[in-house]
Amino acid sequence: MIIVLKKDATREQVEHIMEKVESLGLKPWLSEGVERSIIGVIGEEDMLRALPLEGFPGIEKVMPILKPYKLASKDFKPDPSEIDIGGGIKVGGNRIIVMAGPCSVEDEESLIDIAKKVKASGASVLRGGAFKPRTSPYSFQGLGEEGLRYMAEAKERTDILLVSELMDVRNLDLLMRYADIIQIGARNMQNYDLLREVGKSDKPILLKRGMANTIKEFLMSAEYVLSEGNPNVILCERGIRTFEDYTRFTLDINAVPAIKELSHLPIVVDPSHGTGRWSMVSAMSRAAIAAGADGLIIEVHNNPEEALSDGDQSLLPEKFEMMMGGLRKVAEAVGRTI
Amino acid sequence: MIIVLKKDATREQVEHIMEKVESLGLKPWLSEGVERSIIGVIGEEDMLRALPLEGFPGIEKVMPILKPYKLASKDFKPDPSEIDIGGGIKVGGNRIIVMAGPCSVEDEESLIDIAKKVKASGASVLRGGAFKPRTSPYSFQGLGEEGLRYMAEAKERTDILLVSELMDVRNLDLLMRYADIIQIGARNMQNYDLLREVGKSDKPILLKRGMANTIKEFLMSAEYVLSEGNPNVILCERGIRTFEDYTRFTLDINAVPAIKELSHLPIVVDPSHGTGRWSMVSAMSRAAIAAGADGLIIEVHNNPEEALSDGDQSLLPEKFEMMMGGLRKVAEAVGRTI
Amino acid sequence: MIIVLKKDATREQVEHIMEKVESLGLKPWLSEGVERSIIGVIGEEDMLRALPLEGFPGIEKVMPILKPYKLASKDFKPDPSEIDIGGGIKVGGNRIIVMAGPCSVEDEESLIDIAKKVKASGASVLRGGAFKPRTSPYSFQGLGEEGLRYMAEAKERTDILLVSELMDVRNLDLLMRYADIIQIGARNMQNYDLLREVGKSDKPILLKRGMANTIKEFLMSAEYVLSEGNPNVILCERGIRTFEDYTRFTLDINAVPAIKELSHLPIVVDPSHGTGRWSMVSAMSRAAIAAGADGLIIEVHNNPEEALSDGDQSLLPEKFEMMMGGLRKVAEAVGRTI
Amino acid sequence: MIIVLKKDATREQVEHIMEKVESLGLKPWLSEGVERSIIGVIGEEDMLRALPLEGFPGIEKVMPILKPYKLASKDFKPDPSEIDIGGGIKVGGNRIIVMAGPCSVEDEESLIDIAKKVKASGASVLRGGAFKPRTSPYSFQGLGEEGLRYMAEAKERTDILLVSELMDVRNLDLLMRYADIIQIGARNMQNYDLLREVGKSDKPILLKRGMANTIKEFLMSAEYVLSEGNPNVILCERGIRTFEDYTRFTLDINAVPAIKELSHLPIVVDPSHGTGRWSMVSAMSRAAIAAGADGLIIEVHNNPEEALSDGDQSLLPEKFEMMMGGLRKVAEAVGRTI
Repeated sequence: MIIVLKKDATREQVEHIMEKVESLGLKPWLSEGVERSIIGVIGEEDMLRALPLEGFPGIEKVMPILKPYKLASKDFKPDPSEIDIGGGIKVGGNRIIVMAGPCSVEDEESLIDIAKKVKASGASVLRGGAFKPRTSPYSFQGLGEEGLRYMAEAKERTDILLVSELMDVRNLDLLMRYADIIQIGARNMQNYDLLREVGKSDKPILLKRGMANTIKEFLMSAEYVLSEGNPNVILCERGIRTFEDYTRFTLDINAVPAIKELSHLPIVVDPSHGTGRWSMVSAMSRAAIAAGADGLIIEVHNNPEEALSDGDQSLLPEKFEMMMGGLRKVAEAVGRTI
Repeated sequence: MIIVLKKDATREQVEHIMEKVESLGLKPWLSEGVERSIIGVIGEEDMLRALPLEGFPGIEKVMPILKPYKLASKDFKPDPSEIDIGGGIKVGGNRIIVMAGPCSVEDEESLIDIAKKVKASGASVLRGGAFKPRTSPYSFQGLGEEGLRYMAEAKERTDILLVSELMDVRNLDLLMRYADIIQIGARNMQNYDLLREVGKSDKPILLKRGMANTIKEFLMSAEYVLSEGNPNVILCERGIRTFEDYTRFTLDINAVPAIKELSHLPIVVDPSHGTGRWSMVSAMSRAAIAAGADGLIIEVHNNPEEALSDGDQSLLPEKFEMMMGGLRKVAEAVGRTI
Repeated sequence: MIIVLKKDATREQVEHIMEKVESLGLKPWLSEGVERSIIGVIGEEDMLRALPLEGFPGIEKVMPILKPYKLASKDFKPDPSEIDIGGGIKVGGNRIIVMAGPCSVEDEESLIDIAKKVKASGASVLRGGAFKPRTSPYSFQGLGEEGLRYMAEAKERTDILLVSELMDVRNLDLLMRYADIIQIGARNMQNYDLLREVGKSDKPILLKRGMANTIKEFLMSAEYVLSEGNPNVILCERGIRTFEDYTRFTLDINAVPAIKELSHLPIVVDPSHGTGRWSMVSAMSRAAIAAGADGLIIEVHNNPEEALSDGDQSLLPEKFEMMMGGLRKVAEAVGRTI
Repeated sequence: MIIVLKKDATREQVEHIMEKVESLGLKPWLSEGVERSIIGVIGEEDMLRALPLEGFPGIEKVMPILKPYKLASKDFKPDPSEIDIGGGIKVGGNRIIVMAGPCSVEDEESLIDIAKKVKASGASVLRGGAFKPRTSPYSFQGLGEEGLRYMAEAKERTDILLVSELMDVRNLDLLMRYADIIQIGARNMQNYDLLREVGKSDKPILLKRGMANTIKEFLMSAEYVLSEGNPNVILCERGIRTFEDYTRFTLDINAVPAIKELSHLPIVVDPSHGTGRWSMVSAMSRAAIAAGADGLIIEVHNNPEEALSDGDQSLLPEKFEMMMGGLRKVAEAVGRTI
């Protein structure tokens, strides 16, 4: 931690700060310059964070040096983590994992049909929402457990893995029972109670980046899960809020190499929600893989026109099949398989 | 709803769209222009929203005409709502209501001391967090029920009202028992299960704007509470995420007159979290009142240096007292009391 | 400057960095910690900035300590600057200065009419664009010198001061001749050649904040003007780009107290462009004054429906008159006059 | 144009609006609904834009239907434009064009060295700044014409094409003489006088997206150049301002497929400025190509540690060479050459 002092900080103020730091058992050193003096404190930054230093008289600003996350960082674990999601499939290795399916689960028959088709095209995981976060209370909110049962049936028939979103801690048992991967949605990225609960299991967690959250905060939310004992966190970039309005969000492909620099956790990309436009899904999926993503999560619907949510951003199975062909070539170009 | 057709939309595509709209029992009209043709559908926009029109072949874009919220809108209720928070105090009337107190509740004695002082300076409500949303799992997470008991003791002694945050639906009963106003924090603005639960009571709800949410989405979240039957929603602007980094967030004072144009619900402002700098709290509080805010929520701590969270943005009671003097003059200048 | 080393930085890399710093004649000190080591360099930060330190092997990040602007900072000049704009009027003192008028100058008669009215209501400066930055090449681009002549005529008749925008360095002489204050628009805040040219005169400059620029960059642009020798810079907050779309921009009232903390330069606020909604101009003007702004710049048009640009955000003279009444009370409440 | 009326719009207000529209020679139609009525006006939207409709009494909002740009749109020219930049090289065809070189031109010898190396690795164009937009007036501002002469010498020796930035209209002739492509930087994207001047030539223009500008505004700025008669516009995505601070800007890869949907103009990507981190340049270059970009512009320096500007984001020639190998595979995967 570097504490930058105000130009006019008094001797008393400086001493007071030094004492405070020392009272935590830390060793501060004062470095006096012509224009500004600073106090440095190396190590145990967490303890210092508890002090509201920026409010102390005589202090201009405080600059942390260490990353606020530990278990999620590459310092802690330099090699990439591979998360076993069942069926011998791992996210984070050489093979790029594709998750595909409708935004919401709507009926059993069409879900099984989609599951068969996306599996045939190369997807390993079926996505489908049983509980849906909808901006409007008047929109379709999902089928609940019934939707999960349809997913289970699709798994039974096609041997595909399942990912589904948990929104309410009261449905944790339900999701634990049905899903192979539990998704924490963007709107709940900082729902810390939910993070702690899923951290108590060892179920793989697909943690989506909040639409207003920095990469650092994203890793801090992963830290919540990891610090409870669950190492199986798969990060998911799904678009951030910016002023651009042609796309629904700005899918931040930069997050892929950034996270590869900072963390050992795998990162997948959701171009369907990230752009909100099905016409851009193929191009952005290719970009994600080229940038180093470990997987994709794509909305596919056999009848987007009838979809009860987010049909605007869904691909038809045939378009998905075609897209997968293109992705295979890009994966190969970067030395991976799909 | 206005459906703008692509320049090269075919006759078949247009007919297909018209049929789809008609199949919902609505009456579309086609208006053909030189550069673009459009299909208009007036009324019952909600039904149309269920169709993923932007994914239909032949459609370029879809423009909603009606506001997506109803109960929160001024169309529904032109006169301002006054929310009774107990003790004969109402938020939304001529009197500006001030809520003040520490970010987290830390110990009973100092809480009672703050409660006395802020009440003496003119605050009607004591704020204090028992459950705290913290970015880091390693930061102080709040005292839980113990904190609420300290607040109850402060209320007992000073007859001040209480506002505290609910983060987890499992703590709803606890909050219902202790708090006069239940706060839904910015990170939970789109935690729809939580919104629905608090909507089932008639307890006043202080709903904070999410840091990445538009004013429209803010009102949609209020709609979740209102649509469950609880009319007692107090909105709270607390800063949005922008590229500016001098302040922790960008406190959006514009939201005050904007919400007054769109909704009948009262709006209060939180300059402490919104700026993250105690030195700016007075200026931004004055600005909020001058812009028409119905209240303020301010962090006050009797020892910011020792505060276990957010001490950087807390005022000392004496500064709060001084600030209140200044606010009284501004309130008077805009024809209100405080 | 604090240089944070990578965890795995080698001895050679550290020595190489130390040598580089020393080769600039500076004295670095190395501080070794358990988790991270740092190199500190105090003083002459400008020299170090020339080195692309973040690209050096072994360096994780570089954190500047000093502010990158000097002449614009409060460190350099603790007392507020008062900018004499002519006619004995100063911006930055106790009196709040109001500039008002149409977005573009359209015809002489109506301009004189507006000038009379706004002056009667208390404005000291007539705003009016002769050269207009328009997003579309097909929109009205301003009357050019003819517009300036109309403004001169309005000044002649009403003794009001003039502010007008300079977009092209080739028109500098023209603006120097006609305007009392030269405006540099938001889109040109980082047009450094233009800044340098106006810095060579001693004409008061109204420098508008760019819509994507931080307060620090804003002060850096002021520094361009100041460093050429012109001390007469008036800053103007006019809204930044955010995701919020109810308002055209997000008028950042926080910039007012922030700039008062960082700089001695006066700051005025433009609520007309900042919000893009005339209905919000009064509320945001009151907020600006309550927050400590030294002035306002307001669009007023005697016939907004016929205005050739930005009529949506213009007030009628009668509304302006009414608003000024309200502002006087707020100014008084914060101990100032208008 | 769709004009949405207020719920309480009076008959007189509606008639007034209809008359205004008719007075422009346009035909409005009124469509009355239960909750809202609207007035539609098809065609000649430009004329209507001159009216400040949102300021009219009785109008709630105005929704344009047509795109505000014409010459830049795909409606105007459905096939992709290929821009001839000299030497038989075209931007916008099957071959992806790479521009590479130092941020600023510093000395002749090293520039020639870089030119040779990047050409050998497959770059067709040498980038190099002679006039540099720098945030600080105290930073190196470029060598001016001397820098251009060094570039000319590098061209002479290696037969590489040249791109360099024009910041000041007074240097247009100089740039016309030396550069094969004139760059308009992000900070000047809305410097309309500059756009108009370069529009009067037929020199290829590399137009960079402003850091706070939407894709629509980006195309409007291209329209300024096109409408003056110069069809040779190459667009360049270089990152937008967001709250994310790990990268210097958020490079918006989504802009690539978006522009391909909206415009016939070629689009290249600048990952060096867009991310501000050389370690991310390769990954983001691959992403850009995978997404469909027509070219790249990359900072390469033979001694980033000594670079006078932006060394943090420069690659060494050897790293550039390696990166080009990877890009070739990705280009091939998407059916293109490099």
